[in-house]
Amino acid sequence: MAETKKLTGIAASDGVGIAKSYLLVDPSLAFPYNEKIKDVAAEESRLDKALSASKDDLKKIEAKAEKNLGKEEAEVFQAHITILSDPELVSGIKAQIEHKQINAESALKNVTDNYIATFETMTDNAYMQERAADIRDIAKRVTSHLLGIDLPNPALIDEEVIIVAHDLTPSDTAQLDPTFVKGIVTDIGGRTAHASIMARSLEIPAVVGIGNAISEIKNHVNIIVDGGAGQVLIDPNEEEEVVYARKVGEYFARKREQAKLKNQTTESADGKHFDINANIGSPKDLDSVIESGAEGIGLFRTEFLFIDSDHLPTEDEQFSAYKAALQAVDGKPVTIRTMDIGGDKQLSYWKLPKEDNPFLGYRAIRISLKQDDIFRTQLRALLRASVYGNLWIMFPMIATLPEFRQAKKIYEEEKDKLLSKGTKIADDIKLGIMVEIPASAVLADKFAKEVDFFSIGTNDLIQYTMAADRGNDSVSYLYQPYNPAILRLVHNVIDAAHKENKVVAMCGEMAGDPVAVPVLVGLGLDEFSMSASSVLPTRSLIKHLKFSDMKKLAIESLDKDTNQEVIDLVKNSIK
Amino acid sequence: MAETKKLTGIAASDGVGIAKSYLLVDPSLAFPYNEKIKDVAAEESRLDKALSASKDDLKKIEAKAEKNLGKEEAEVFQAHITILSDPELVSGIKAQIEHKQINAESALKNVTDNYIATFETMTDNAYMQERAADIRDIAKRVTSHLLGIDLPNPALIDEEVIIVAHDLTPSDTAQLDPTFVKGIVTDIGGRTAHASIMARSLEIPAVVGIGNAISEIKNHVNIIVDGGAGQVLIDPNEEEEVVYARKVGEYFARKREQAKLKNQTTESADGKHFDINANIGSPKDLDSVIESGAEGIGLFRTEFLFIDSDHLPTEDEQFSAYKAALQAVDGKPVTIRTMDIGGDKQLSYWKLPKEDNPFLGYRAIRISLKQDDIFRTQLRALLRASVYGNLWIMFPMIATLPEFRQAKKIYEEEKDKLLSKGTKIADDIKLGIMVEIPASAVLADKFAKEVDFFSIGTNDLIQYTMAADRGNDSVSYLYQPYNPAILRLVHNVIDAAHKENKVVAMCGEMAGDPVAVPVLVGLGLDEFSMSASSVLPTRSLIKHLKFSDMKKLAIESLDKDTNQEVIDLVKNSIK
Repeated sequence: MAETKKLTGIAASDGVGIAKSYLLVDPSLAFPYNEKIKDVAAEESRLDKALSASKDDLKKIEAKAEKNLGKEEAEVFQAHITILSDPELVSGIKAQIEHKQINAESALKNVTDNYIATFETMTDNAYMQERAADIRDIAKRVTSHLLGIDLPNPALIDEEVIIVAHDLTPSDTAQLDPTFVKGIVTDIGGRTAHASIMARSLEIPAVVGIGNAISEIKNHVNIIVDGGAGQVLIDPNEEEEVVYARKVGEYFARKREQAKLKNQTTESADGKHFDINANIGSPKDLDSVIESGAEGIGLFRTEFLFIDSDHLPTEDEQFSAYKAALQAVDGKPVTIRTMDIGGDKQLSYWKLPKEDNPFLGYRAIRISLKQDDIFRTQLRALLRASVYGNLWIMFPMIATLPEFRQAKKIYEEEKDKLLSKGTKIADDIKLGIMVEIPASAVLADKFAKEVDFFSIGTNDLIQYTMAADRGNDSVSYLYQPYNPAILRLVHNVIDAAHKENKVVAMCGEMAGDPVAVPVLVGLGLDEFSMSASSVLPTRSLIKHLKFSDMKKLAIESLDKDTNQEVIDLVKNSIK
Repeated sequence: MAETKKLTGIAASDGVGIAKSYLLVDPSLAFPYNEKIKDVAAEESRLDKALSASKDDLKKIEAKAEKNLGKEEAEVFQAHITILSDPELVSGIKAQIEHKQINAESALKNVTDNYIATFETMTDNAYMQERAADIRDIAKRVTSHLLGIDLPNPALIDEEVIIVAHDLTPSDTAQLDPTFVKGIVTDIGGRTAHASIMARSLEIPAVVGIGNAISEIKNHVNIIVDGGAGQVLIDPNEEEEVVYARKVGEYFARKREQAKLKNQTTESADGKHFDINANIGSPKDLDSVIESGAEGIGLFRTEFLFIDSDHLPTEDEQFSAYKAALQAVDGKPVTIRTMDIGGDKQLSYWKLPKEDNPFLGYRAIRISLKQDDIFRTQLRALLRASVYGNLWIMFPMIATLPEFRQAKKIYEEEKDKLLSKGTKIADDIKLGIMVEIPASAVLADKFAKEVDFFSIGTNDLIQYTMAADRGNDSVSYLYQPYNPAILRLVHNVIDAAHKENKVVAMCGEMAGDPVAVPVLVGLGLDEFSMSASSVLPTRSLIKHLKFSDMKKLAIESLDKDTNQEVIDLVKNSIK
């Protein structure tokens, strides 16, 4: 019996999935460019059929998307149908077929390229850029019908599958129905890639960064994804299917065990207490927080209120969202981060200047301090909501003390104005900062004297400390959470805070990472905040760790040379 | 008598300049768009005159530029003349005038916009992007003649002036004849802006970042620029002219005093020795190094051999350049940095992938390690040149120990290959790293055990530590060389190196900055490397400082809260 082929990648989301592969890969749509044709009428009829088949596709996809994902996600497909029915577009293509006597594929390409070029020239206009993407999608679909080649239609998936892709973009994942996706396998990306974060949050087993999955895995073959081990088995034999079916069983048994921890607190094996909180992006996520057994909300990313809106959210709209979060967790702490737009988070209705290096640019608190009307509105909404629970306000991207002082001054001004109008405000609101810029990590002793708490944002802290964009595949090998340089900065922040009796949380991906957690426990991190799905596995992990041992482990890790040495150290210490 | 108006900005380049203002500001070239005309022939004749006047301008500018700046700098103007003489362009504009019966300005705009849009669509092609810029320049010039409005022609300046501009781009400065420019005043930018660096290197007094210079200063009025104080006086009275004329005298007297230090070594007032080296970009800069009194070359930026070429420089071309540098300084140390392309340094003939955040991307050693054929060629050229002097090789953008180890391994491999072929190689070549990424500054103790030397690259170290792109005006306030977080990292690097008896240099702008130098002396930095023009002023400054006092000053600065507090501390300590 031939040995089963195994592929190895990065363990991005725990669990085991067994199903047929579904290759989410664009097939080649090559055609002879500007090939001369004789029969214009026949060519136009080929075009008409391809247009009509494309519209049929899109109607099916739209209906499916509306059912599975909601009206909003489905709208893009309605837009595509409208464009396909545009008489100017169709007559433009036919004019090319008639005048140039060329094949329909080329006529379509010439006309749509022209549209795309025009839209793309408007580089400052994100709306027009998106329209260029629409035209490109449509041209692809019509070309595929002209050539008789099937495009993958992820929105139409209605049986259990393992998705195999080069990478998953947000727009890919928006089309997927999570009930049918039993596993995700990609060729690029690391633990913090979009696909990985989404997989963990939906509890779908995932292995990413394999490199050759697309070339090795055929469509519709049996696949096993072992997300915990970072392994993918292609066309497994019966014996392996039994072994992994048992692993699926064990996984769910472990989940059931962990579920028992839901209403417990988090203590290490030798009794040291930690808090485990959940991260949210909007009040929509509150149900999963309550389900998760989290001890509070460690990060409310308020920028999603801004991104998911078509206007700057009003004070009252924000007030309702913050009040909902505070009430939902019933007096448990809720850490709300003021808006972190800029960088890779842009608003469609309020344009920021285009920058050469947006991650090193005008974003987050830098915007809030300079254009402070939006900031003041947000602070008023937060202050008014404070009476409904236990509010911690956190400023993102603080690099210097004067920035924190200015933010606090603006906060105090808005507070005084509200108080003088008789508005009720809680008297125990905490003011803290994200530590995500190396400068504030290095100067943590100074900040600790002035803030109420720190929350370490590892996603950004790692990318600045390593000078490596975490979204750039060419340098993703430098995104090293366990690099001793990162651990030393984290250590410095925790020590500085504790000297001033201040609390330190962590709200980056690292806080729920099973390799990092033992070290963070040893360094004495007070609060871990993570996606809701990681809360119970992390609580379970911490319950098995002895704080006294982890302290030694942490000290040893600070003296290692490399990221890999720390991984090896942790793996050898925690069996 | 009315009080003289004074503007305050950033002291970017020392010295005092007195001359008439020359506003390098584009005038408004507004015209009625697509205005209907009656007399086509008259309109075409207006166009012909404007075209011909533009060509006359360009010929004068070309001749002047060739004389003042060299043949290469002048070529762009010849290219503009060629484009203006292109029959297709001219007939295209005339066709618009004839068919649409519109004014020449609009016809010109319609035709040139079309060219520009076409060129700009080719977003991956830097050459075509530059052609778009050419067309834009030409359209501006012809429009100005159509409207009878004078454009500033910096290349034609032939009397002493103070340049007043919003900002100076490299292409602006390429047109300036330094003999006539007695001062530079700009509204934006900081000490590390292109205009500031150029001003210091040409020893032209400069005040930048004023904010309202363009609106406050009229053309052709008397101006005094006090580059040391960061002040600009508009239309000064006689008394002030006398005071400042005396300052000019004092400045030159100081220069004469400093010139006496040329052949001296650099010691503090209490006898501690430091080395002052110069930075160069190519062998062209060697004369100024020898003139400067530098004790060696602290940074040879070899990427300019790559950027100023139309092909990858061959091993022999590189060998000649490195040999020239080693021989020119006659046995003094020469630190040569391997190629640092990527980021904002792109090659026209070898395209790197477009990145969202190039400063956090695929650049420098990251390229050298992945595409190592170019790196190996460079190392062979360096190894072969080593017998001609005292060679120190330095790797840029090292973030992790495995990167340094891999670079060293490749170096050893090339060395062994050359030795086995009988090539002579010096046996005392030093291998070091740039410390410009926070991770390597934090982990300096580990690196110090493996490298021969460090050179701290403050320009990048500051931008990563503060998470602020130094070329982005919206966040330039965060480019803080004296922020205690930066000083602590520098301190950590120096201490770690000295524990292993390794040398620490600094080759960023900070090394020649009079506010930073006292602190760096106190921290025990061994070598200061800077633009040639800063060598003697820095030597003079250090001779006036007592190391024992500066040690206390440095320790105090590490415990300050903010950048400004450190500036105040230094200014109050050094009178």
